[in-house]
Amino acid sequence: MATLPSVSYSITVRLELDAGGSAVGSLTNAVEQVGGMITALDVAAAGHERIRIDVTCAARDTEHAQAIVDALGAVEGVAVHKVSDRTFLMHLGGKIEMKSKVPLRNRDELSMAYTPGVARVSQAIAANKDDARRLTIKRNSVAVVTDGSAVLGLGNIGPEAAMPVMEGKAALFKRFADIDAWPIALDTQDVDEIVRTVQLLAPGFGGINLEDISAPRCFEVEARLRELLDIPVFHDDQHGTAIVVLAALRNALRVVNKKLSEVRIAMSGAGAAGTAILKLLMHAGARDVIVSDIHGAVHTGREDLDSSLRWIAENTNPEGYSGDLKGSVAGADVFIGVSAPNLLSGEDIARMNEDSIIFALANPDPEVDPEVAHLHAGVVATGRSDYPNQINNVLVFPGFFRGLLDAQSHHVTSDMMVAAAVALADVVTEAELGPNYIIPSVFHPELSNHVATAVRDVAQRGSAE
Amino acid sequence: MATLPSVSYSITVRLELDAGGSAVGSLTNAVEQVGGMITALDVAAAGHERIRIDVTCAARDTEHAQAIVDALGAVEGVAVHKVSDRTFLMHLGGKIEMKSKVPLRNRDELSMAYTPGVARVSQAIAANKDDARRLTIKRNSVAVVTDGSAVLGLGNIGPEAAMPVMEGKAALFKRFADIDAWPIALDTQDVDEIVRTVQLLAPGFGGINLEDISAPRCFEVEARLRELLDIPVFHDDQHGTAIVVLAALRNALRVVNKKLSEVRIAMSGAGAAGTAILKLLMHAGARDVIVSDIHGAVHTGREDLDSSLRWIAENTNPEGYSGDLKGSVAGADVFIGVSAPNLLSGEDIARMNEDSIIFALANPDPEVDPEVAHLHAGVVATGRSDYPNQINNVLVFPGFFRGLLDAQSHHVTSDMMVAAAVALADVVTEAELGPNYIIPSVFHPELSNHVATAVRDVAQRGSAE
Repeated sequence: MATLPSVSYSITVRLELDAGGSAVGSLTNAVEQVGGMITALDVAAAGHERIRIDVTCAARDTEHAQAIVDALGAVEGVAVHKVSDRTFLMHLGGKIEMKSKVPLRNRDELSMAYTPGVARVSQAIAANKDDARRLTIKRNSVAVVTDGSAVLGLGNIGPEAAMPVMEGKAALFKRFADIDAWPIALDTQDVDEIVRTVQLLAPGFGGINLEDISAPRCFEVEARLRELLDIPVFHDDQHGTAIVVLAALRNALRVVNKKLSEVRIAMSGAGAAGTAILKLLMHAGARDVIVSDIHGAVHTGREDLDSSLRWIAENTNPEGYSGDLKGSVAGADVFIGVSAPNLLSGEDIARMNEDSIIFALANPDPEVDPEVAHLHAGVVATGRSDYPNQINNVLVFPGFFRGLLDAQSHHVTSDMMVAAAVALADVVTEAELGPNYIIPSVFHPELSNHVATAVRDVAQRGSAE
Repeated sequence: MATLPSVSYSITVRLELDAGGSAVGSLTNAVEQVGGMITALDVAAAGHERIRIDVTCAARDTEHAQAIVDALGAVEGVAVHKVSDRTFLMHLGGKIEMKSKVPLRNRDELSMAYTPGVARVSQAIAANKDDARRLTIKRNSVAVVTDGSAVLGLGNIGPEAAMPVMEGKAALFKRFADIDAWPIALDTQDVDEIVRTVQLLAPGFGGINLEDISAPRCFEVEARLRELLDIPVFHDDQHGTAIVVLAALRNALRVVNKKLSEVRIAMSGAGAAGTAILKLLMHAGARDVIVSDIHGAVHTGREDLDSSLRWIAENTNPEGYSGDLKGSVAGADVFIGVSAPNLLSGEDIARMNEDSIIFALANPDPEVDPEVAHLHAGVVATGRSDYPNQINNVLVFPGFFRGLLDAQSHHVTSDMMVAAAVALADVVTEAELGPNYIIPSVFHPELSNHVATAVRDVAQRGSAE
């Protein structure tokens, strides 16, 4: 599981060197010798005596980047001028912007888009509030709401630091489903305040995507908002993950020729994602599941159960298994981990049933080394982009919201989520399906449409009933 | 003051008529006879026997639009197929959108804009919160916040119906100052809730523009937010209006060769705009002001004074004038109305001092007919676009926020407002200045830069002290 250099850690180093010398040829060597990877080499300025070169390289991390810079500086005749970090450069000033869809070139256009013309549009909505979904951005807008309490794997870093992630999410909404999302990073981690604030700002949005709010608060925030609002509320860390896992599991089961209703599933992790995955799998027909958290299997005999864990204890683990995670994995057909790195070994995987399915989704380091798991399992998936079968929420949330908005849906149901998972799974054709291809790429051109259509159909069927 | 047809009420009527007939020539006549104005005539489809024509016309209002449609239908051989309202068409689906500024074409770009690359950017901000102004949209974003309680002249129409106005405002921010504004329409009119909500969503924004919140609640909302937030808070209805009025008055006084510190000013209206205008004029040097509201002149002897009116009573009207508005206007040099239609007659204006200045800003119907006022006054300005000297907030708020954001200002001061007014006034050159040109057009290309530079300079001077 050695980390490879990644363009997500890409630096550009400006060098000055003798024009006549042989230094240029040595640069590539120097970078490669410390394990870096040159992705671009641009001559920025060339003179008779000295030339300036911008070398862009992928590094593993901060220390590795420094080692590359040092190696370049050590080449005979080379002076290092400036080091820039491409990822930071990309983030300068933020990653998103607001654009007007209407021209404002002259007074006539101003008088239609703004006063006095806009008054008639406002009056129409005042007379019929539903027209807001026709005549305002509510038709196509989603608030991406976080409190910054559980951002990526970084933990409770607060609303300001969460913004780059939320902006990225908004950009993905646009890229993959032409949705206008705007990030709202809240300066509170109080459940009542989060709920009330989202409720108050809902009039301008057609949907709410909750993001990176820590468990168990996220459950209550979501449940209460679903009660209060007439627009759909989706917690991507829960439902997005659950839908992709169900889709991937559906296809993995096809690969090994087993049935969801018959397999034994061992899960690791009972947080936001784990709980949502569990519930969706059960809604889709899974029956034999044991969930473990850091204290071992969740069962009714445990005395440390909060309301969420109690629900799990009462609805899973029918035999009341009370051992540890490793024990629950032995003899299981499926392992799904959304927990912590390196909990399982190759031997643990070997003790599972034949043709086992391993979803080791802890990021960046999975519950079991995927290369080791591969030796004993039928199908292996992770959350990482550098292994096959990446379980990635981007596969779902854009298309899911596209479907909700197109149907002008007022809510999100488990049936919609199952339909989205089936649609996502079906993007992989029978001919393509295999142990290393159970889930399509996020860049698959049909993906978002497929998911959107499935969600919209269920939503419209629901509202027709 | 007869209203003219306006493109802000523009309809497109699809007609079908005989290809061989003379009906086409009669269409223009028919529209003109009922006072409409054809702005476009497009042949949508032409056959041998019948042709389809889209006639676009400007109307005065709903009844007038219907009269035009009826007149077109009455032309021999013409059938009316469909009537569309151009303003409504322009609003379909909302007027703004979110755009990504970064490309997301492949996995490498995804890995820099989103996970895993984004994590380093988030960590940098977690380590130093100020970096949010460098690495997120906070650098350039403004929340346009309303509660829908005082929208244009429409009153308390609620947050959904306010959205078209807020979207228009956001579009203006972009058009005139390249600012990324997003509308937030709140589903509460409780001062505590508005304040708390704006405070909670502030981390993602570089400024707050309060909009169309009714007085006196807007005063408290603004004052409390200024205390609580470390980003500038601006209430456009108050401060935007005040700055434009001060700029226009400055130039009007140049036209009639009088001094702000020496003129007697009669004001009508003590709401949000009136109070802000008063305070800014006094900050800029005005000394002799009498403010009237619906109950007459505001003076210390009145028993109906709330805290805002009490402030006015104690700081204006030094002689304790206790009569009505008309009495306060007699002998004044300047009249500024931000109140109600048709409060003053030509005779009232005639009783003012020589070369009087009339700013009759009630919309759409001013406090005095501007054509009548013109007979007796030196300079006349209104809020209307169909008379010279339109006092329009669009002249200020984009450039004002541009300056605030560029200076990364934490607050708004009266000195910044005066500087903005001076900069705005100075856009009109000595050669251009005259009774019918005291304020530039909103489309003046230098406008926003001038205002922004003035505000930024004051803000930076302030933070350097």
